[in-house]
Amino acid sequence: MLEQLKETVYKANLALPKFELVTFTWGNVSGIDREKGLVVIKPSGLEYFEMRSRDMVVVDLDGNVVEGDWKPSSDTATHLVLYKAFPEIGGIVHTHSTCATSWAQAGKPIPPYGTTHADYFYGDIPCTRPMTEEEIKGQYELETGNVIVETFQNQNIDPMQIPGVLVNSHAPFSWGKDPQTAVHNAVVLEEVAKMAWKTLSVNPDTKPMDQTLLDRHFLRKHGANAYYGQK
Amino acid sequence: MLEQLKETVYKANLALPKFELVTFTWGNVSGIDREKGLVVIKPSGLEYFEMRSRDMVVVDLDGNVVEGDWKPSSDTATHLVLYKAFPEIGGIVHTHSTCATSWAQAGKPIPPYGTTHADYFYGDIPCTRPMTEEEIKGQYELETGNVIVETFQNQNIDPMQIPGVLVNSHAPFSWGKDPQTAVHNAVVLEEVAKMAWKTLSVNPDTKPMDQTLLDRHFLRKHGANAYYGQK
Amino acid sequence: MLEQLKETVYKANLALPKFELVTFTWGNVSGIDREKGLVVIKPSGLEYFEMRSRDMVVVDLDGNVVEGDWKPSSDTATHLVLYKAFPEIGGIVHTHSTCATSWAQAGKPIPPYGTTHADYFYGDIPCTRPMTEEEIKGQYELETGNVIVETFQNQNIDPMQIPGVLVNSHAPFSWGKDPQTAVHNAVVLEEVAKMAWKTLSVNPDTKPMDQTLLDRHFLRKHGANAYYGQK
Amino acid sequence: MLEQLKETVYKANLALPKFELVTFTWGNVSGIDREKGLVVIKPSGLEYFEMRSRDMVVVDLDGNVVEGDWKPSSDTATHLVLYKAFPEIGGIVHTHSTCATSWAQAGKPIPPYGTTHADYFYGDIPCTRPMTEEEIKGQYELETGNVIVETFQNQNIDPMQIPGVLVNSHAPFSWGKDPQTAVHNAVVLEEVAKMAWKTLSVNPDTKPMDQTLLDRHFLRKHGANAYYGQK
Repeated sequence: MLEQLKETVYKANLALPKFELVTFTWGNVSGIDREKGLVVIKPSGLEYFEMRSRDMVVVDLDGNVVEGDWKPSSDTATHLVLYKAFPEIGGIVHTHSTCATSWAQAGKPIPPYGTTHADYFYGDIPCTRPMTEEEIKGQYELETGNVIVETFQNQNIDPMQIPGVLVNSHAPFSWGKDPQTAVHNAVVLEEVAKMAWKTLSVNPDTKPMDQTLLDRHFLRKHGANAYYGQK
Repeated sequence: MLEQLKETVYKANLALPKFELVTFTWGNVSGIDREKGLVVIKPSGLEYFEMRSRDMVVVDLDGNVVEGDWKPSSDTATHLVLYKAFPEIGGIVHTHSTCATSWAQAGKPIPPYGTTHADYFYGDIPCTRPMTEEEIKGQYELETGNVIVETFQNQNIDPMQIPGVLVNSHAPFSWGKDPQTAVHNAVVLEEVAKMAWKTLSVNPDTKPMDQTLLDRHFLRKHGANAYYGQK
Repeated sequence: MLEQLKETVYKANLALPKFELVTFTWGNVSGIDREKGLVVIKPSGLEYFEMRSRDMVVVDLDGNVVEGDWKPSSDTATHLVLYKAFPEIGGIVHTHSTCATSWAQAGKPIPPYGTTHADYFYGDIPCTRPMTEEEIKGQYELETGNVIVETFQNQNIDPMQIPGVLVNSHAPFSWGKDPQTAVHNAVVLEEVAKMAWKTLSVNPDTKPMDQTLLDRHFLRKHGANAYYGQK
Repeated sequence: MLEQLKETVYKANLALPKFELVTFTWGNVSGIDREKGLVVIKPSGLEYFEMRSRDMVVVDLDGNVVEGDWKPSSDTATHLVLYKAFPEIGGIVHTHSTCATSWAQAGKPIPPYGTTHADYFYGDIPCTRPMTEEEIKGQYELETGNVIVETFQNQNIDPMQIPGVLVNSHAPFSWGKDPQTAVHNAVVLEEVAKMAWKTLSVNPDTKPMDQTLLDRHFLRKHGANAYYGQK
């Protein structure tokens, strides 16, 4: 069942330690088959290099396990909310990568300070509001998804233009059109967070970059007039 | 004698350089056999990759060498105090890992800034008071254990809920139900210390995380209602 | 055509990931054959370890592709402006290396704080002014070259004595007499940027180094009286 | 001639890239045969992994090349001054390791903030005064040695108790009873510099450690009553 998506999700999970985004099992990747309405996700707590493609768990959009011998990632409910709210995304990544997590802990969005940011994220990488006591004590992982969606809706952000978020006091989520792209964006988010930290350290008064430059770089890589790469 | 525990302690010691927690021989792991009242610990000053399982030293709880060709770690007396005061712990790690040591040198507890911390440490990771001249000039390593125990008693901290400490002007100790878990917690302590440093650098006014969120994350991984992983 | 230069440029591009100057494909190296007036440059968006020497693209100084199956780097126009304005340079490198990019984002030149800097850069590593809306919306990559050249002309800097620059809100460019030297200077620029960041963190009031010491170190490695190495 | 010392110095030089203390060829190690009054040192500008044991250069204490096909390190004169002034040392290391160099650039001694420092350096790691114009324009490398010696004499420091120094606006030198120990101390100096930087970042008001604790740790590893390790 969904053998190819399982293989893709499996390899995308292995990319997390390869890119040094995770300590132990602190991260997971999922992918969705939009036609079938099924999501493939890493099993909870398994070591990356001890699992196999066929250990990936298949769940439906209500979180029921459709196939698999393991419990799915404890963050599954968050992934499902995002798949439902953001219909264009095909893969999601959650990590506790060091620098992005530090910004999440600081409770601050990452401003666009340069073209590295602008090539992938078309504006601030937002940080959610703190969750309420009710949300935390209730269906916590589902509410984590809800507060992400609320952030994008309230600030009128297109999730395909800002493919990542910082969950307040927690850590980043990122996504993309497929699981590989979601991992790619997780790597960029960590690198951008690292640069933004060092930028502020060198010059605490750094202002966000010029809007025209932000437009130019984002649109150089995205949309109808993109001209980066071989397409 | 205690061949299995020696093998466990030996491998746990080798994990210290693997996880980049030590420079040269600046770290040691021990494990205890509670029934026999015997502790197995790294020999003092030996290189990790030049020692073998059978080089581990066996001492009783008074510090007498029961078996072994080498002198035990110079920190043995500290380990023994902790084993006696904290009856639930089965393994102890001491390192000078860079970021945790920097917090110890700064003389500051590490506040819980996010869920990475909350998943393993149920509150501040405490920093001991400075040791007195008498303590330092007396049985220094034993007194190091005493000041750790005092810190946990005075602040009413359960060592199974906060499995680590910063010794003022010195470095971290961590522990767990067995030597592997103690190493695991040492890795987390270093990562949490690194994130807390960067968090403060990004936002010097960062407040500790919400208590409800701290509860939720700690209890998600610990205790009767834990639901992380495959159990 | 230009087989040897292609091989040199190819290997210089592979040195970027080797020296950890790039994430993904965020960097490129070119080299010039001054007699023929032709430039060899990395193709746009190709992975370093998936391309071959013969994938390098040959362009003339007006940017026309003379040979090659791929589109040249999207930064080609910047390289060409520099080759035309700086007749002594033979190779150019562009990266988004972390620390140099952080200084570029901070909009600040890197002051010479010590002999590591002085051995390679004879004074401040300049940061360009922000580009205007017209420049960004126009021939952006060409204008990026122009603002670099303007910086060197306005500040009367010899590009052979300061073989690198920070483009404001963007990232570094560096160069040298050939592609290998340009990569060498890119490595030094990143290391110098890292040290300058940490230097300011240790002592925010650090002043630039003594001019006499700057002279001594630069001239120890460059010019008629150089005495470093085996020449 | 001096085959064994050449082998020792050669291997000690190879340890510099292994411990990540150097970029390119930015570091050198020497060793002395006190009876013969001869010093063996790395050749200038050669890559570590392209040289062989027999490429090491032998010089006398006046800097004359006694044997060798290469020019000795451009820092040879500094090494010779130290060997003459500090009769107990047997090996010297010079690097531009990142954190120690940042403190040197900041022009600040590294205060003892914890036991990692105290285990190897019995007090501040001093930073020399800036060199005068006359010293820089004169026999610069020799004067670099002189300003180091002056620092130790004026502050009454025993070079066997503080086996390293920061040369203002330049970089560290370290030493020991033999070349291996000098490299060991260079590694410690870099690690201590890194921790001190992070310590100040976490708590800018950090005070130097308690003197009694400094005594205890230094004397635990050094002198007649040392009890660390297997001796």
